[in-house]
Amino acid sequence: MFRHQKELQFEVKVERPDPLFARQVQEVLGGQFGEMTVMMQYLFQGFNCRGEEKYKDMLMDIGTEEIGHVEMLCALISQLMDGASPEDQEAAAKDPVTAAIMGGINPQHLLVSGLGGLPTNSNGVPWNGNYIVASGNLLADMRSNLHAESQGRLQVARLYHMTKDEGVRATLRKMLARDRYHQYQWMAAIQELEEKNGVVVPATFPGEAEMEAQPEAYKFWDLSEGNESSEGLWATGSAQDGSGDFVYVADPVPQGQVYKPEIPPTNIHHDLDAVKVPLKK
Amino acid sequence: MFRHQKELQFEVKVERPDPLFARQVQEVLGGQFGEMTVMMQYLFQGFNCRGEEKYKDMLMDIGTEEIGHVEMLCALISQLMDGASPEDQEAAAKDPVTAAIMGGINPQHLLVSGLGGLPTNSNGVPWNGNYIVASGNLLADMRSNLHAESQGRLQVARLYHMTKDEGVRATLRKMLARDRYHQYQWMAAIQELEEKNGVVVPATFPGEAEMEAQPEAYKFWDLSEGNESSEGLWATGSAQDGSGDFVYVADPVPQGQVYKPEIPPTNIHHDLDAVKVPLKK
Amino acid sequence: MFRHQKELQFEVKVERPDPLFARQVQEVLGGQFGEMTVMMQYLFQGFNCRGEEKYKDMLMDIGTEEIGHVEMLCALISQLMDGASPEDQEAAAKDPVTAAIMGGINPQHLLVSGLGGLPTNSNGVPWNGNYIVASGNLLADMRSNLHAESQGRLQVARLYHMTKDEGVRATLRKMLARDRYHQYQWMAAIQELEEKNGVVVPATFPGEAEMEAQPEAYKFWDLSEGNESSEGLWATGSAQDGSGDFVYVADPVPQGQVYKPEIPPTNIHHDLDAVKVPLKK
Amino acid sequence: MFRHQKELQFEVKVERPDPLFARQVQEVLGGQFGEMTVMMQYLFQGFNCRGEEKYKDMLMDIGTEEIGHVEMLCALISQLMDGASPEDQEAAAKDPVTAAIMGGINPQHLLVSGLGGLPTNSNGVPWNGNYIVASGNLLADMRSNLHAESQGRLQVARLYHMTKDEGVRATLRKMLARDRYHQYQWMAAIQELEEKNGVVVPATFPGEAEMEAQPEAYKFWDLSEGNESSEGLWATGSAQDGSGDFVYVADPVPQGQVYKPEIPPTNIHHDLDAVKVPLKK
Amino acid sequence: MFRHQKELQFEVKVERPDPLFARQVQEVLGGQFGEMTVMMQYLFQGFNCRGEEKYKDMLMDIGTEEIGHVEMLCALISQLMDGASPEDQEAAAKDPVTAAIMGGINPQHLLVSGLGGLPTNSNGVPWNGNYIVASGNLLADMRSNLHAESQGRLQVARLYHMTKDEGVRATLRKMLARDRYHQYQWMAAIQELEEKNGVVVPATFPGEAEMEAQPEAYKFWDLSEGNESSEGLWATGSAQDGSGDFVYVADPVPQGQVYKPEIPPTNIHHDLDAVKVPLKK
Amino acid sequence: MFRHQKELQFEVKVERPDPLFARQVQEVLGGQFGEMTVMMQYLFQGFNCRGEEKYKDMLMDIGTEEIGHVEMLCALISQLMDGASPEDQEAAAKDPVTAAIMGGINPQHLLVSGLGGLPTNSNGVPWNGNYIVASGNLLADMRSNLHAESQGRLQVARLYHMTKDEGVRATLRKMLARDRYHQYQWMAAIQELEEKNGVVVPATFPGEAEMEAQPEAYKFWDLSEGNESSEGLWATGSAQDGSGDFVYVADPVPQGQVYKPEIPPTNIHHDLDAVKVPLKK
Repeated sequence: MFRHQKELQFEVKVERPDPLFARQVQEVLGGQFGEMTVMMQYLFQGFNCRGEEKYKDMLMDIGTEEIGHVEMLCALISQLMDGASPEDQEAAAKDPVTAAIMGGINPQHLLVSGLGGLPTNSNGVPWNGNYIVASGNLLADMRSNLHAESQGRLQVARLYHMTKDEGVRATLRKMLARDRYHQYQWMAAIQELEEKNGVVVPATFPGEAEMEAQPEAYKFWDLSEGNESSEGLWATGSAQDGSGDFVYVADPVPQGQVYKPEIPPTNIHHDLDAVKVPLKK
Repeated sequence: MFRHQKELQFEVKVERPDPLFARQVQEVLGGQFGEMTVMMQYLFQGFNCRGEEKYKDMLMDIGTEEIGHVEMLCALISQLMDGASPEDQEAAAKDPVTAAIMGGINPQHLLVSGLGGLPTNSNGVPWNGNYIVASGNLLADMRSNLHAESQGRLQVARLYHMTKDEGVRATLRKMLARDRYHQYQWMAAIQELEEKNGVVVPATFPGEAEMEAQPEAYKFWDLSEGNESSEGLWATGSAQDGSGDFVYVADPVPQGQVYKPEIPPTNIHHDLDAVKVPLKK
Repeated sequence: MFRHQKELQFEVKVERPDPLFARQVQEVLGGQFGEMTVMMQYLFQGFNCRGEEKYKDMLMDIGTEEIGHVEMLCALISQLMDGASPEDQEAAAKDPVTAAIMGGINPQHLLVSGLGGLPTNSNGVPWNGNYIVASGNLLADMRSNLHAESQGRLQVARLYHMTKDEGVRATLRKMLARDRYHQYQWMAAIQELEEKNGVVVPATFPGEAEMEAQPEAYKFWDLSEGNESSEGLWATGSAQDGSGDFVYVADPVPQGQVYKPEIPPTNIHHDLDAVKVPLKK
Repeated sequence: MFRHQKELQFEVKVERPDPLFARQVQEVLGGQFGEMTVMMQYLFQGFNCRGEEKYKDMLMDIGTEEIGHVEMLCALISQLMDGASPEDQEAAAKDPVTAAIMGGINPQHLLVSGLGGLPTNSNGVPWNGNYIVASGNLLADMRSNLHAESQGRLQVARLYHMTKDEGVRATLRKMLARDRYHQYQWMAAIQELEEKNGVVVPATFPGEAEMEAQPEAYKFWDLSEGNESSEGLWATGSAQDGSGDFVYVADPVPQGQVYKPEIPPTNIHHDLDAVKVPLKK
Repeated sequence: MFRHQKELQFEVKVERPDPLFARQVQEVLGGQFGEMTVMMQYLFQGFNCRGEEKYKDMLMDIGTEEIGHVEMLCALISQLMDGASPEDQEAAAKDPVTAAIMGGINPQHLLVSGLGGLPTNSNGVPWNGNYIVASGNLLADMRSNLHAESQGRLQVARLYHMTKDEGVRATLRKMLARDRYHQYQWMAAIQELEEKNGVVVPATFPGEAEMEAQPEAYKFWDLSEGNESSEGLWATGSAQDGSGDFVYVADPVPQGQVYKPEIPPTNIHHDLDAVKVPLKK
Repeated sequence: MFRHQKELQFEVKVERPDPLFARQVQEVLGGQFGEMTVMMQYLFQGFNCRGEEKYKDMLMDIGTEEIGHVEMLCALISQLMDGASPEDQEAAAKDPVTAAIMGGINPQHLLVSGLGGLPTNSNGVPWNGNYIVASGNLLADMRSNLHAESQGRLQVARLYHMTKDEGVRATLRKMLARDRYHQYQWMAAIQELEEKNGVVVPATFPGEAEMEAQPEAYKFWDLSEGNESSEGLWATGSAQDGSGDFVYVADPVPQGQVYKPEIPPTNIHHDLDAVKVPLKK
């Protein structure tokens, strides 16, 4: 069960409204790697977590923090939209800068939300459940979490350069700091899990079953012209768990057959073998 | 530019058709972490790659390999559907096992694709472009790639247990081996990039700008009851780049204000301050 | 079965083209609460209506009217786009106002629809079937209808302020009037149904089954700091059907357990209990 | 800012696993009117609320409660999936009942979530941001809330009949009771707002502007054959705000023109006026 | 403006309910090529049609017919669901055939629509506006229409084999006949337009601009191993408008450059050129 | 299996960056009829092709070519975005033309992709699998292919007029030429298949079954006021396969019944027949 307290986690005080920037902020609220994504992802991972309590507790700590980040971004967008009005569009005909702003804002901030944040990205695409994952495998999911915080911090950093409003920037700096910590946090969790189970997900797929195919687990297939890719650790080193050495296959040959599928039953109406019998008049 | 050769990368020879299993295979073809996702993700990352040639070449190598994995899975689904016919549903009324299969199959395998693979997941949800990312930051993206291969291999491993068909399993073993290699591969690439730039994405956001907020970059906020989360490396250790030590904040206090937004302009029709003036008759 | 007559329901005569406004109008054509939504919602409710004929007939009357509203909005958008041309973008480099308009228009009005209306909202997101509901319970659905007309009229009112074109405004006034009537209409239908069945949906869920949980049906749980919420009718009054009095629970305590889920079977590859056995070389 | 406590709001103790029912429960978790919808809708309405504090506080109370309902439903689904394994499908070939269950379950509960809840509906369609609304007009939004609780309770009631598991039913009874209260709650809030502002949304659209179109605000257009619809209060009564009397137009005549759109500029490539000039050889 | 009459276009009388088949019928109601698609596509093409009146009138005739087809399919689904009840699932535990049906039905037919048709496909994916096109170029759109009727009739034909219910089949036969006519109809319209404007869309793109690239307009690039493709009319014949002869390029060579993109500005945080400066402690 | 070579199929050399035009180009990359669509459509048709080898080989040739077109468009967009920076938005406040450009660009080109192409359309809507079809019926699918190339070339032609950059135009000319050839190509394939099987899809649906409904296969129903539609070949000619003559039904009468659906079981909670029994206090 959850509780809410009225203060925001960090202060959100915009110096002056900026409806165009409000549109851009939507990306880190309701976009693929926005705060709604990390909030829902950590909550679902926490709700579904089976096993060691410390991971579940940690997921609930951070998932609960992220609900408050969605709250902060809604406050940020509301302030950026303060005072905007539908009549601005009508006024834009006379003034190119106003016109440019009206052209660039998200029309739904006026028409749909009445100056509030929306559960959508910077192009108005609604947030959806396929942005998140909670797989029941902690290592897999924490790699997703590290990734999400990396993309999230990258986007906030880019956003930071789009404004000089010191109020906005102060809030973004807090978010950059938290995203920095969350990257450290998931790296630490990943380190624990990899030390325990090994680096390959899933850890428990039986090695015997894989024996036949095992050589394929160490080969780099060079399928794009040029061999610059032979210079990386993936081509010259050993598997991180010491189970094998990488092989660079410079001229790979397919190992499968030329596949000739069966002709389907008549009632699939494939028609290639149709006898042409037009309807009688 | 691309070229195609007729042989499949690995052999795909199903022992016997299994339309119900064909539905499940769709998850690793057109689902969130299926082969379409890694194919499109690596190709877009490769197409958009700016800078060191060896990464671009490597992305094109593996992106090109993955197109062939989509091809293999379509061949697998076609074989699993071989001989299935719409009339099976009509026959199902008499036989509970047939009925169960008809109840469980993806109706679109009969009605829409005529026994072929679909660009959708195991519930029929279409693949979409928001499954992938190509951000222009290599470390961020390679963390996504490592994550995608982790989820992908996890799903293939689960799928492996759903069938005893040795033909299917032979193909899945090859995929498991490749997904193992691809996890090693992205780990190796990540290691190279982290050694060069540091572990936090993005590396180039100016440290000075973050100074004010820096303490927030090392704090764990305990916002969920219980302190089991204090036991992890994220709570007790140091940042992976040595830039600070983690602090476990057991009783966090909000730092922001209680936010009171402005009343919007009249033409937003907020109505809370409306004077009730009904239309005259 | 349906028939079409050539005249529009109301006149649509724009004074002058305005491609930027054409984009905004898309919200009330193909957005969440646009005319496509009410058209499809009332038609599906009418098609699926089981029981009293007067409701079905009424739903078909209004659903049929709304097809004509989609028609009117397409005419409106076509007129707003009249004369626009792809070459305007090329010309925009020289003139800031033209540039602003080109920046703000929906590029699909040029590239995809060739100056016509699109089945999408003001941000280009396609209309989808999840905007509507036809549940088979008339009271539930008519509450949805009242809601849809409320949001619809709100959006048209906001849109009205974005233009001074008297031709556009004349059409919008007709729509505002119809949305006003449709709010009255659904309120009248709701009144009839509530008088007959009571105010809670569904009316027929057996009261006995609910007895155990009944106290929960009258409690307000104060889960957000502050008790301003105690001042409303929901906290101080009685249930609208007289079945109980509301209780404001100022300091609510959870009634459930701390949930500890089972460890899943091995083949789910949860991995927390994995024994680390790397592949042999 | 939010906090989490470990206990569930209400007890969730399933008598026995039932993977098929787990699929159905997804509808009220991640469907159009599931708990994710009311959670996100109330939170966004609360975050964006401008004006009287008691409404904002009330929205935050209930939005915070609903996060806990999502938590409860994830616990319910986890318990319904307990012990399920991918190998069940393989076993299903021998046993029709097992086969039927395997045919009917959501394959993503095994492959994707590893026995946990998903942010999707009963057919696997991901939850998306277009399920919710926060318009900045309280009366409009509270009509949406009343509607959402009506559909939600209707679906839970239907779900209740699909199981005889007394553990599941006990949890559903609590949800039915809360959905009952929430219907009362929104009705009470609506009553307050309607008394203050009048019943039409938005209240503040200037009546003068509507004068021209006003007669249209009271007319029922009979556009579907049959006149059963003339029997309702919408056809025979007065507007709820006393501003007019309803008129049943039995044989409505269109008031608009036959619309003849302009021929578009050449560069739209409309082609109807094309002069056929094939490319020279 | 539209009107509705009460009779269905064709009789819909199912011999007996069949909830499993009701799910499959959703494909031709709300799927990619279902009746909602052709209805909305023809209506939007008609609403947006600029120019010769006979095409607009024809589009409105057929678009209006298709609204009635959606109506018929909703009636069909309602009858197929007649008498189904949520309690059937509970009963299914005892009877494998019932279990299979419950496993196979669309749970939303019970939970969401209360036994009615849904605006979704056979897997529950909502219909969306991207299924349709109205481009403002008649020849392009009529090719889409011919295609949609081809896929639609193919799906209805496959569906026909899934049932032996003579009532259902009678309705499907009418639909097959109409889809046959509609294929003839669009072929006739295409023939008229091709005779007038030539066969390439758009007809009016200036030939001079294409001169430089013109040789590419007749070449078949053999990019897949094997030369079976050299046997078709596309490799051996002439352009249908006589403007050139096809050339089979058996060993195509790329004509473009190896593309080396620029390094982006620092504030994009590309990071490849990052100087590793960790935050000071 | 596939291979990649480093050169682009055609040269892509933009004269100067143009971030606004980069947004428009997204339509033909990731839109409904963009290069991702034809790429995935031809590949899936090729992968799933059962039967005559020459069609499969041809589909693989062209599907493989289209992967290279996606590559070219990503190169085009990258060049159009060269040098753009988030700080441009901040600078826009001073300069109306810059402001207009910033208002019009796709914010995701900066925030999400870091100056690269995205798998989305010109409004940022993600590409999805429902844009394509691979039905297992070659004639149906090739009609789709002809249609897709018609819409694709139409959009590229419109795009061509939006720029005067001769580098961009040179690339677009190549695309226009290829889209011209691909229209010829599909017309040639369609001609072959129609000569073999007849013009109606599917060819193999048994004519006997259709006998009852056959008259409906030749009738034009005039359901929209006006009879301009009687002037087309569809109203006055014969079926293209000579199986019948078209009949223009000027005053069509419905042939079906007025449908009265059954009242549903109580547990559907239809409620119209509810006896009002409120909960006891």
